[in-house]
Amino acid sequence: MGMQKTLGELSELTGAELRGPHAGQVVITTIGALDEAGPGAISFLANRKYRKQLEQTRASAVVIPRDVAWDKPCLVSDNPYLVFVKITEIFAPAIPLPGPGVHALACVHPEARLEPDVAIGPFCVVEAGARIGAGTVLVAQVYVGANTALGAAGVIYPNVVIREGITLGNRVIVHPGAVIGADGFGFAPDGKQYKKIPQIGTVRIEDDVEIGANVTIDRAALGTTSIGRGSKIDNLVMVAHNCRIGEDTVVAAQAGFSGTTTLGNHVMVGGQVGTNGHITIGDNAILGAQSGIMNNVKAGEFFWGTPARPHKETLRLLAEYGRLREMRKQIKELEGQVKRLEKK
Amino acid sequence: MGMQKTLGELSELTGAELRGPHAGQVVITTIGALDEAGPGAISFLANRKYRKQLEQTRASAVVIPRDVAWDKPCLVSDNPYLVFVKITEIFAPAIPLPGPGVHALACVHPEARLEPDVAIGPFCVVEAGARIGAGTVLVAQVYVGANTALGAAGVIYPNVVIREGITLGNRVIVHPGAVIGADGFGFAPDGKQYKKIPQIGTVRIEDDVEIGANVTIDRAALGTTSIGRGSKIDNLVMVAHNCRIGEDTVVAAQAGFSGTTTLGNHVMVGGQVGTNGHITIGDNAILGAQSGIMNNVKAGEFFWGTPARPHKETLRLLAEYGRLREMRKQIKELEGQVKRLEKK
Amino acid sequence: MGMQKTLGELSELTGAELRGPHAGQVVITTIGALDEAGPGAISFLANRKYRKQLEQTRASAVVIPRDVAWDKPCLVSDNPYLVFVKITEIFAPAIPLPGPGVHALACVHPEARLEPDVAIGPFCVVEAGARIGAGTVLVAQVYVGANTALGAAGVIYPNVVIREGITLGNRVIVHPGAVIGADGFGFAPDGKQYKKIPQIGTVRIEDDVEIGANVTIDRAALGTTSIGRGSKIDNLVMVAHNCRIGEDTVVAAQAGFSGTTTLGNHVMVGGQVGTNGHITIGDNAILGAQSGIMNNVKAGEFFWGTPARPHKETLRLLAEYGRLREMRKQIKELEGQVKRLEKK
Repeated sequence: MGMQKTLGELSELTGAELRGPHAGQVVITTIGALDEAGPGAISFLANRKYRKQLEQTRASAVVIPRDVAWDKPCLVSDNPYLVFVKITEIFAPAIPLPGPGVHALACVHPEARLEPDVAIGPFCVVEAGARIGAGTVLVAQVYVGANTALGAAGVIYPNVVIREGITLGNRVIVHPGAVIGADGFGFAPDGKQYKKIPQIGTVRIEDDVEIGANVTIDRAALGTTSIGRGSKIDNLVMVAHNCRIGEDTVVAAQAGFSGTTTLGNHVMVGGQVGTNGHITIGDNAILGAQSGIMNNVKAGEFFWGTPARPHKETLRLLAEYGRLREMRKQIKELEGQVKRLEKK
Repeated sequence: MGMQKTLGELSELTGAELRGPHAGQVVITTIGALDEAGPGAISFLANRKYRKQLEQTRASAVVIPRDVAWDKPCLVSDNPYLVFVKITEIFAPAIPLPGPGVHALACVHPEARLEPDVAIGPFCVVEAGARIGAGTVLVAQVYVGANTALGAAGVIYPNVVIREGITLGNRVIVHPGAVIGADGFGFAPDGKQYKKIPQIGTVRIEDDVEIGANVTIDRAALGTTSIGRGSKIDNLVMVAHNCRIGEDTVVAAQAGFSGTTTLGNHVMVGGQVGTNGHITIGDNAILGAQSGIMNNVKAGEFFWGTPARPHKETLRLLAEYGRLREMRKQIKELEGQVKRLEKK
Repeated sequence: MGMQKTLGELSELTGAELRGPHAGQVVITTIGALDEAGPGAISFLANRKYRKQLEQTRASAVVIPRDVAWDKPCLVSDNPYLVFVKITEIFAPAIPLPGPGVHALACVHPEARLEPDVAIGPFCVVEAGARIGAGTVLVAQVYVGANTALGAAGVIYPNVVIREGITLGNRVIVHPGAVIGADGFGFAPDGKQYKKIPQIGTVRIEDDVEIGANVTIDRAALGTTSIGRGSKIDNLVMVAHNCRIGEDTVVAAQAGFSGTTTLGNHVMVGGQVGTNGHITIGDNAILGAQSGIMNNVKAGEFFWGTPARPHKETLRLLAEYGRLREMRKQIKELEGQVKRLEKK
């Protein structure tokens, strides 16, 4: 990479406190995981469970939380994650993306509109009326449907499909294989068979959203499926038609939202969670992994389990559940005692 | 869209009853969601929860169930969903699909057979011996393997992969990223390692099936994995090798069927359901969301939970479960009372 | 297929015992499922549940476990699965893969290195610095990122995406739509919004691994996400950043591993299992389907349920759970008896 900084310089650049012997002069040329880093590298204690790796690391310096005791060169911070993000940004190799221009083997409709510095890689398809914002990159093999509008400075990875009439904001990242704007799952039984309900709505993805690999976000039946600014969706998540996800909401892998689920802002959704349709999850709510959310969850609540209950209640009930055998024995014993008492 | 109908005309076209002041003369030019529609639009009360949106809608008319009281122009029906489907079909803009012909940047083997009016979009691959039925559209970037036969009037969206030797019926819709005919997950342990069992069966998808985005339907080890006429499979569903799904069966997102699961006709499968292998689910059965189905389910039964039990039993047990703390207190109290009685 | 063997020859080739009248002379020309096979076919009793199909099969011979009584021509073995694998390999038609060479409509960077007999199908992209090992096949529409190294004799099916800087071993099979090396899901909250943590690690897939359709395996934040030799990953599985999966481990469909989950060797993971991050699953452990694994699991343990407990304990607790109603009645009865006793 060729980049070189002293730990002192990194302290200034990140605002983290410098600690340890001669720490300011330590030369950093790369970053690495605690158990893989060597001399010249700066590493990161992401989780106290890895304290032992910290003891054994060969890294020249580490970023640690303020309350971890450590007598070697390090950067100390109340938010070590943010410090590490900044350092990673300094040393991270650039992701090799195609430069501006349309690849000779891409298929861009003459009525599509490409703003300056757009890059369209090989085997991409951009249909009529589509608009690609300035500096956005379609890496390769991407499909952008008719009249779909992508914002500026986005990265759309290979094999992403964005169907017609969809809107993406600026700085949106879509990982490989994600599908945006497929038909919602809507069928009306006519007594014997199912008749397809035409899905004529759209999807709106706001600025700074990141969408994981092989995610599916369906278009609305009518109206809009939307994902608010800054929200992050992990791999293999399902967002059904007419869902509305707020801002800065985080959804872990393989979660699924039934049609017309509404999520507020700053919600945290664990992996493999499922929600009932037509419910509302309030701002700052937390849904624990694998939960089955049957009803509305109020702002700030932490729900867990299937069917989901307040987290504390679920923990209490699980503790009771673990004592069931003991309870049954107690009942049996009581029955014996009562029988003996009755005989007297 | 340019389409224009009076509510009276829509009443005749759909068979729905006309109601409200001067309803027959109301001019409809578009459709829209209750909370987004404006004048000239007809909307739809899909769920009584949105009664409030009905009160506030600016739509010129609405489709409502017969038992909803409403004094403005509307269409009334016992099956408002079907009415709305018909109206949507009238006003829905056509999905922009490529017209008949093979795109210059598609790769169709000379020994593939294309029936009349087939459309093959850019970067599609159609291998030797494949057959594409009349009027079927491969939108773009689709893969059709050797000797695979697609029926007529289908729509195969971008990035769908259909491997060799697979059969699809007529009017089948496959959404982006779906994979049909990948190897089943079959390995024989030889004591130390796993040996791959060649997966030499096929997949048969019957007429009028719809397959969601990023679904995976594996080919049979031997024989056939099949999905019956009219069944609808939502996004990210897993259908393992040798499963047999009946007709008009509906499977919600992220459900997964282990190898050799058999489902009857008109089954309804909730989201994130999982089934044990080698079991049979009878006609008209309902499997509640997130259920773990361990054993056969008889026709018409409604199962829910993990492990799944009859729905009513699961509800009863969940109610008991919610009272566990109380039960433990009762036992404790009884123990005290019995102790006191014994002392006397 | 044209292949023809006597059952006697198959007995010699597989080491299975010949049984039944004139068994050695029976001519086999194909294989088939019990309920689909006709004369000339050999079939296989995969599961005792299909004993009835065995009685009714029209196959000329069958492979059966040693303890199944059967008086018609058959091959008998203690490991009938392995016998059947060998027979399948004899009769299985070759999968139609492209022959060596680069398709005219592929896009291979001049600085990519292709070893002998590599096949690159239409619409594949191979970026600068990538290396494809001898005999490996990219079927079609595959993306191989910059500096990614694929081993020899692999098969990469259509629409697979392998991003930059990834390593795959020899004889690796990747099914359609799988995504290897997408960014891990790492974001640092800065108080209000989430800042993306650059994901600069890699993925290493060792020899003889098979990866299912639409699987996602994320690159490490730092360091390596790895899958050990011989492990088999079913469709739609999620492997998060920094997971380490051992050798000969089998993961069923739709399971998901949170970041930095470590799995040992010979682990068996059921469908739809989810694991907490930063935990370790020991060698030979079994995780039952749909389990939610919250904590470390020791080598050889069989865990099941959410939250997962030892399998036997989960079975016991489920049995208790099923008796909850009865327990409540017993308590009620006791309360009545005690009240009567107290009155006396």
